[in-house]
Amino acid sequence: MKTFNVLTIFPDMFKSPFELGVLSKGIEKGLFKINPINLRDFAEDKHKMTDDYQYGGGAGLVMKPEPIVRAARKLKSTENSHIILLDPRGKTFNQQKAEELLQYESLTFICGRYEGVDERVRNLVVDEEISLGDFIITGGELAAMVIIDAVARLISGVLGDETSTQEESFLKGLLEYPHYTRPHEFEGLKVPKILISGHHQKINEWRLEKSIKTTLQNRVDLIKKSALDSDVLSRIKKRRR
Amino acid sequence: MKTFNVLTIFPDMFKSPFELGVLSKGIEKGLFKINPINLRDFAEDKHKMTDDYQYGGGAGLVMKPEPIVRAARKLKSTENSHIILLDPRGKTFNQQKAEELLQYESLTFICGRYEGVDERVRNLVVDEEISLGDFIITGGELAAMVIIDAVARLISGVLGDETSTQEESFLKGLLEYPHYTRPHEFEGLKVPKILISGHHQKINEWRLEKSIKTTLQNRVDLIKKSALDSDVLSRIKKRRR
Repeated sequence: MKTFNVLTIFPDMFKSPFELGVLSKGIEKGLFKINPINLRDFAEDKHKMTDDYQYGGGAGLVMKPEPIVRAARKLKSTENSHIILLDPRGKTFNQQKAEELLQYESLTFICGRYEGVDERVRNLVVDEEISLGDFIITGGELAAMVIIDAVARLISGVLGDETSTQEESFLKGLLEYPHYTRPHEFEGLKVPKILISGHHQKINEWRLEKSIKTTLQNRVDLIKKSALDSDVLSRIKKRRR
Repeated sequence: MKTFNVLTIFPDMFKSPFELGVLSKGIEKGLFKINPINLRDFAEDKHKMTDDYQYGGGAGLVMKPEPIVRAARKLKSTENSHIILLDPRGKTFNQQKAEELLQYESLTFICGRYEGVDERVRNLVVDEEISLGDFIITGGELAAMVIIDAVARLISGVLGDETSTQEESFLKGLLEYPHYTRPHEFEGLKVPKILISGHHQKINEWRLEKSIKTTLQNRVDLIKKSALDSDVLSRIKKRRR
């Protein structure tokens, strides 16, 4: 069973987000587990300290190296866990990284708080640094939850419908087409006729064109980065003429 | 008081992540509030349906337009809320966007699940679409939490130490320098001598050089995007010679 360990001073944060929704069912089915570990349990001094003032001065505390290194080493030796430090200095997380992380049977996320973790944690136990994006949040915990969500949903059997992960944004290098459900007319806005035509080939055609259009409008950088198939490429060329 | 509304079918997800840490204290102090709203309460049919099959066929359900539009309209009229749809098609969230969102007294996040929300929600009530990054997660809830965290910590008084938000990554267009705390020596690795010299100017110098070095190594794209000051620019040029 795939295990997501989290080294944190706030293990209880992980309760409610994974008690609901499709991921909670994956946990119930035993397809994966989330294991938040309290860093305080790895602090050896009598005050169970996990942070302290920083050398050189400056506002904000720094997470002490000993509890993190001790906890990470244990997970490395018992389950050969891949140790990830969540930090703005890391590589930006994306769908390709999610697919890559799916390969590890055990992942461990180190969640910094305050000014971050002592630099020696990096030197001693970190296999990889990942950043959720170019913004600052108060701790690594929410970043860990997002990455766990992105990886866990790719585990076989977690999403009820195996096809759901195949037709989605980014995998094809394009953003998604618009979706419509009932009612057929809402505040004067009708579902596009083509979608109720029953003509599957034309529907697919329409969806692909909409995907291309939205991607060109909103995220032309995605197109440059992706290995698009030749049909998509020729459609893009046509639009640009 | 700044209000973060969240339109979701899983309001209880928002419990534990904001019951701990520095943000929970900001909530206790009345500096901001998080208000998860159950979309089921805005469903009018007797089954309280919030999703349905999609027109045109394909796996996965789509969130129905009526409950979302009804709830968003109410928040728009009562508190002039800025309505955000969390969706991979939106602009990628970053620190600049966090600063921008800080300007609104009320923000409302629409959290899609399954294949997303009916396209007419976009047409009728959405002010802005934001994407957390180039990856897929099972719902908008965790994305909303991350954005709320990034914005809420910028509210005056939320972080105990007013200076903590000023010296950090991205604001200056650079990644952070390494941090060290006690012990002075850990597993043979010592804190850099300069940091215990007490010479503040040299320490600042060392930190700036380390920031520049890490940014050049890991995220040269940040440097291209940022308006760096002339001192930093000349240091970068020196390194590149």
